[in-house]
Amino acid sequence: MPGSTFGKLFQLHTFGESHGSAIGGIIDGCPAGLEIDFEFIQHELNRRKTNQGLWSSPRVEPDEVKFLSGIFENKTLGTPIAFIVENKNQRSEDYEHLKYVFRPSHADYTYYAKYGIRDYRGGGRSSARETIARVVGGAIAKLLLKTLDIQILAFVSKIKHIHIPYVLDKISSDAIEQNPFRCPSDEKNDEIRYLVEQAKNDGDTIGGIITCVIRNVPAGWGEPVFDKLNALLAHAMMSINAVKGFEIGDGFAISEKFGSEVNDEMFLENNQVKFKSNHSGGIQGGISNGNDIIFNVAFKPIASIKKEQSTVNLESENIKIKIEGRHDVMVLPRAVPIVESMTALVLADVYLMSKINRL
Amino acid sequence: MPGSTFGKLFQLHTFGESHGSAIGGIIDGCPAGLEIDFEFIQHELNRRKTNQGLWSSPRVEPDEVKFLSGIFENKTLGTPIAFIVENKNQRSEDYEHLKYVFRPSHADYTYYAKYGIRDYRGGGRSSARETIARVVGGAIAKLLLKTLDIQILAFVSKIKHIHIPYVLDKISSDAIEQNPFRCPSDEKNDEIRYLVEQAKNDGDTIGGIITCVIRNVPAGWGEPVFDKLNALLAHAMMSINAVKGFEIGDGFAISEKFGSEVNDEMFLENNQVKFKSNHSGGIQGGISNGNDIIFNVAFKPIASIKKEQSTVNLESENIKIKIEGRHDVMVLPRAVPIVESMTALVLADVYLMSKINRL
Amino acid sequence: MPGSTFGKLFQLHTFGESHGSAIGGIIDGCPAGLEIDFEFIQHELNRRKTNQGLWSSPRVEPDEVKFLSGIFENKTLGTPIAFIVENKNQRSEDYEHLKYVFRPSHADYTYYAKYGIRDYRGGGRSSARETIARVVGGAIAKLLLKTLDIQILAFVSKIKHIHIPYVLDKISSDAIEQNPFRCPSDEKNDEIRYLVEQAKNDGDTIGGIITCVIRNVPAGWGEPVFDKLNALLAHAMMSINAVKGFEIGDGFAISEKFGSEVNDEMFLENNQVKFKSNHSGGIQGGISNGNDIIFNVAFKPIASIKKEQSTVNLESENIKIKIEGRHDVMVLPRAVPIVESMTALVLADVYLMSKINRL
Amino acid sequence: MPGSTFGKLFQLHTFGESHGSAIGGIIDGCPAGLEIDFEFIQHELNRRKTNQGLWSSPRVEPDEVKFLSGIFENKTLGTPIAFIVENKNQRSEDYEHLKYVFRPSHADYTYYAKYGIRDYRGGGRSSARETIARVVGGAIAKLLLKTLDIQILAFVSKIKHIHIPYVLDKISSDAIEQNPFRCPSDEKNDEIRYLVEQAKNDGDTIGGIITCVIRNVPAGWGEPVFDKLNALLAHAMMSINAVKGFEIGDGFAISEKFGSEVNDEMFLENNQVKFKSNHSGGIQGGISNGNDIIFNVAFKPIASIKKEQSTVNLESENIKIKIEGRHDVMVLPRAVPIVESMTALVLADVYLMSKINRL
Repeated sequence: MPGSTFGKLFQLHTFGESHGSAIGGIIDGCPAGLEIDFEFIQHELNRRKTNQGLWSSPRVEPDEVKFLSGIFENKTLGTPIAFIVENKNQRSEDYEHLKYVFRPSHADYTYYAKYGIRDYRGGGRSSARETIARVVGGAIAKLLLKTLDIQILAFVSKIKHIHIPYVLDKISSDAIEQNPFRCPSDEKNDEIRYLVEQAKNDGDTIGGIITCVIRNVPAGWGEPVFDKLNALLAHAMMSINAVKGFEIGDGFAISEKFGSEVNDEMFLENNQVKFKSNHSGGIQGGISNGNDIIFNVAFKPIASIKKEQSTVNLESENIKIKIEGRHDVMVLPRAVPIVESMTALVLADVYLMSKINRL
Repeated sequence: MPGSTFGKLFQLHTFGESHGSAIGGIIDGCPAGLEIDFEFIQHELNRRKTNQGLWSSPRVEPDEVKFLSGIFENKTLGTPIAFIVENKNQRSEDYEHLKYVFRPSHADYTYYAKYGIRDYRGGGRSSARETIARVVGGAIAKLLLKTLDIQILAFVSKIKHIHIPYVLDKISSDAIEQNPFRCPSDEKNDEIRYLVEQAKNDGDTIGGIITCVIRNVPAGWGEPVFDKLNALLAHAMMSINAVKGFEIGDGFAISEKFGSEVNDEMFLENNQVKFKSNHSGGIQGGISNGNDIIFNVAFKPIASIKKEQSTVNLESENIKIKIEGRHDVMVLPRAVPIVESMTALVLADVYLMSKINRL
Repeated sequence: MPGSTFGKLFQLHTFGESHGSAIGGIIDGCPAGLEIDFEFIQHELNRRKTNQGLWSSPRVEPDEVKFLSGIFENKTLGTPIAFIVENKNQRSEDYEHLKYVFRPSHADYTYYAKYGIRDYRGGGRSSARETIARVVGGAIAKLLLKTLDIQILAFVSKIKHIHIPYVLDKISSDAIEQNPFRCPSDEKNDEIRYLVEQAKNDGDTIGGIITCVIRNVPAGWGEPVFDKLNALLAHAMMSINAVKGFEIGDGFAISEKFGSEVNDEMFLENNQVKFKSNHSGGIQGGISNGNDIIFNVAFKPIASIKKEQSTVNLESENIKIKIEGRHDVMVLPRAVPIVESMTALVLADVYLMSKINRL
Repeated sequence: MPGSTFGKLFQLHTFGESHGSAIGGIIDGCPAGLEIDFEFIQHELNRRKTNQGLWSSPRVEPDEVKFLSGIFENKTLGTPIAFIVENKNQRSEDYEHLKYVFRPSHADYTYYAKYGIRDYRGGGRSSARETIARVVGGAIAKLLLKTLDIQILAFVSKIKHIHIPYVLDKISSDAIEQNPFRCPSDEKNDEIRYLVEQAKNDGDTIGGIITCVIRNVPAGWGEPVFDKLNALLAHAMMSINAVKGFEIGDGFAISEKFGSEVNDEMFLENNQVKFKSNHSGGIQGGISNGNDIIFNVAFKPIASIKKEQSTVNLESENIKIKIEGRHDVMVLPRAVPIVESMTALVLADVYLMSKINRL
């Protein structure tokens, strides 16, 4: 009921403040008998770490996941799977000067307005460190989906105004992981590098777009009418820090077309239903149609900039602020595994639901 | 758990197929003692009717709502509020020829893939008639929000490629309702009329964008981390038939900016926290900041076109199809009250939650 | 979230006040493709009607169920199944004199304390007419369970102090239905008849115990740790009006024994796990063990008595009251189908859950 | 959705197997600003420890609770409160010989039937160690309820056949805690001691009854119709290991009375509604009436006995078993804080709900 639970059947409950003792969660509802690949999970977690390159904070966060329950002899028991990642190398003193300050476009003010109390150290619960729990939960969901051969691939398709070209069918996990910005191709690397350095020098930040494609989802997943698969994906994506937009298939662009231009006509091939196009992005009426599912997620620039800004403080004073400290220039490459994780959580949930939809 | 329930505290459960005996629902969790304005509710329902003009189907659907419980002497009892709208003037025979056909970009195929059975008459549960229940539920939510002086205004801001100009602070309910397309201004009426007629003559359809602004939401509504207010709104909007995109505040455009361009700086005015800008769209960290909440919703063109399309049928044959019958050219003006209703349902829910967030 | 929903996967949402226009509900989550036997459902409903004999009110309530959605050509669609039973022959004027009175041991005072408003006519939402929706929902659940050969048999095992003797394995639906009090045997009929007449003449009421046995539930149903099958059954039974106690297997009596007397030892028979005894009542660790599930439910006497009682009214006065009108002497025989229905709802829910517990 | 979550608004999610690395949980929904008394919480936990006397296992379990999130400067933040209790002194090798054995009246067989896999060490998830998380969650709920002056007192009222006499209004926490068996009076101590020693010498176990009284709950808590306060309490109690029965107020005994004997008549005293009796146990129509809430919970004897029993093993053989190891003779005194904790969790939940029931 409160907002730290995601999913209905495959559920993730999370907890943790940025500078508390740990971030973690409980996965409840994972079927019994699933083999757990601990290396894979830690690898997923490493993908969201800081200190991955030019664009990221030099802050080193070890972020090792430790499982506390629900797994026995490397297999899930069907019982809740709890895990924690200890917060280390958190310098609370870095935030002492922010104790009474509301940083612009951060959640400082809104948390205070809501709760009348806040953990000011590093954003507390509103910190992006919270996404650690999403990545661990998502990694378990991915292991479940792998048994069905489902593949989830997210990548950075636009950095600020720079579009990164790609051919959807040729995108591979390897190409993305080898690119320094988790882009699907290297063509724009120099342009991006120049942009990032410029922002870094200016104490500024940049946003962009992550695209996600899901392969091999069978037709028939998703629940009418409020829990359409696209609605669940939108919910999942918009719950990620800094996300401001979501679109599926042709998305906003489709609204500029005639129906005759964007309907996905069907035909039979080897007695299988196929589609001549995929403007819908793999979902119709909220239910998967067997096509690739494709969507875009828009991220705003990180709010922590070193430039001077106006704001207010707890003593009701107008003040000026510059946000120093070790911050990323952009969140995009680190957000790729987060987008994938939230996608995996949605799919694991609707997969379980699909098992009880008919006699 | 299954997908016909929306909300957690202020809940709407809906039911109904297009050609069944009725569409309806239950609102559970509405506080006791709320005065019910039946005329207002019916008026809201009338706003989503067919036969409203050039762009809409000439089909006449009386759609009168009847309440069955939860209201006594014009006040809510705190118990479930059930309502039904009978399906009249539904010509099931119109759909007899579609019995074995999967219409392109409709939910025919996906429902069948999911359930192994479907009510082929008028789309069954996937029909937009389902939104009747959303509008009734939303109207009750609006009555609750009115006691807090909260105003929800949706309008058509783009029709296909035609942007409708507006000044956000000057938008009024009257102007929208008087415009034949529920646009915020009349400037583009001729252009729109020409476009609609053209599409109608071609047997084609068009999409567009609806914008929604919410005034007077206090700071502090919305739940971290998964149930961010923007995530709930995205879920709500993406659950509406034909919606393919959602963005809040500057949305996709914000991803092209530097952080220094789009942070919302704060200042004090009469000891009240104010913002110099509203790029965030009134929500930070998933919690309302007291600013107007603004978002856009992208609708695809209606899938029912009269032009010939390729598709398949239940007998596993490749066939051609033209969708005849009384269909709208665009859904936008009728979708305005639906967008508002889903918004009201989200807000009623987070409002109740906000009452228990602190001691 | 609010309290008019039962179940998680196989859900029943109910609505309706005693003297409103209808009682009804929505069943959501019933798998697609289930054949609906409408006569069976109406027959179940008839079993809970008034005017069934000596012990019951002569009030005639037609109580015909009408389905509004979710069923097509006699099969479930997988979409919500809505139904209503119109309230007819409700004499609201019978209750006019109770408008300002809180009847002792009724919910009049507590509803008013909770909501600050109440529908005083016939108890409003707290009336036993609410159980109509449970019986319809339970009847659909029974149809689902019949496909698995599961049989639910409830019967009146004690009326006030009179124990009705029975041999569990020999109990049949026919014997119960033919007995005028829904007892499993006729041995005590005369004694019961005398007791009922005595109470009736005195304007008094009586309570008793209903026992329920469930046959053919496979081992493995129920969820650790909070949703143990016995906990869900207890929740279900204690939610029925007038129920004051629940016990499973040997229940309260087991607490007087040594462990060595009441452990259920196991052995193999034709390679099947069997139990030498069934003190546990078919559930261990909250999960079914394959044995018959057996439990008892204690009902208090009906609160509406014709004898003079002290009470208070809305004007804060001490007053005397005699409750006239057409009331049952005991609720037990009519409660039998209600106990069965709530049992069926629990089982349908854990059955669906059992389908996703393992890979 | 899966069964390791309790509550809707004040939620407890738990995890942990008996011999895994930790038992723990997350409390989500606790209002912000609640002062946390860590000593009180640890003290509650100590009350459920082993090695408390004659009747309990000499096993020493340190069971220290460590909080990981949700609390800042001794106050709740409104965010999830995570906690763990490490499993120490667990001798897994003690259970090696039970690896392939299903202990009678334990959950070994049913877990295996459900999941197809089980953690055989000490019962895994079905172990009573799981209740550690309930006690910590309950302690936080108690702190919340203390701000409303609500008092929850459970005590052992019957051990096997021995009734412990008490006067309800005179029962105090001190008297209970000082009694070696958590009984409300010392009158039967010798008799109990003799019984326990006898059972211990025989390698046998005993059950009994715990009674719980709740003082100062205002009228108006609890949700019609399925979530009646008594139904939630029954669910909570029946979810505790070894519980086989629940009754509220006069419970099973009330079913033997005439209505005129057990209705709770009302009168006004200083303009307050009072009751002449409390046969209902403080709840009418599922909603608290302001009276003390009283209920009984029946516990079966512990299933682990040292006497020889018949059972089966994973190799499908009939075998004999004696359960050695360090087990309690009875669970009752340790279960007292568990009963109180589950009660507190229920009340915290309905308290929050009561804040949103009316305008």
